[in-house]
Amino acid sequence: MARVVVDVMLKPEILDPQGRAVQGALTRLGLAGVSDVRQGKRFEITLDGDLDADRETVLNRLAEELLANPVIEDFTVRVAEQA
Amino acid sequence: MARVVVDVMLKPEILDPQGRAVQGALTRLGLAGVSDVRQGKRFEITLDGDLDADRETVLNRLAEELLANPVIEDFTVRVAEQA
Repeated sequence: MARVVVDVMLKPEILDPQGRAVQGALTRLGLAGVSDVRQGKRFEITLDGDLDADRETVLNRLAEELLANPVIEDFTVRVAEQA
Repeated sequence: MARVVVDVMLKPEILDPQGRAVQGALTRLGLAGVSDVRQGKRFEITLDGDLDADRETVLNRLAEELLANPVIEDFTVRVAEQA
């Protein structure tokens, strides 16, 4: 069993109105000095069996094609657990 | 400057139709053995100055009140960078 985490965040140069709204709310509700908030997506993927090199290649391709929009988003793929 | 990451995921007992749709798509597009996908939110929060104990308490409270819905979601708060 392998657990893979894919994080998808807007590229730094893309405006993030959701993050901006959260930034304003955190400040209003008493957290001082919030200089930036970005909101993105997190996928936790559980796979049967080992994550071999072939499957990792497929997973990286699908993260780029399916989970992220590479025009406006960056993503990271990370094996959280391999057992 | 401190960077804090808050991950918000649906509780394991709550159905996740978005995750289920992604699971189906990954399988159809050639990734074998996907047994589960959960989709959640990731917040990257940048703070001026150090994250002392007081601000960390406020941040934890606001993560629970503002960023997550504790009825259906679990969250983790993690300091990614402290400099």
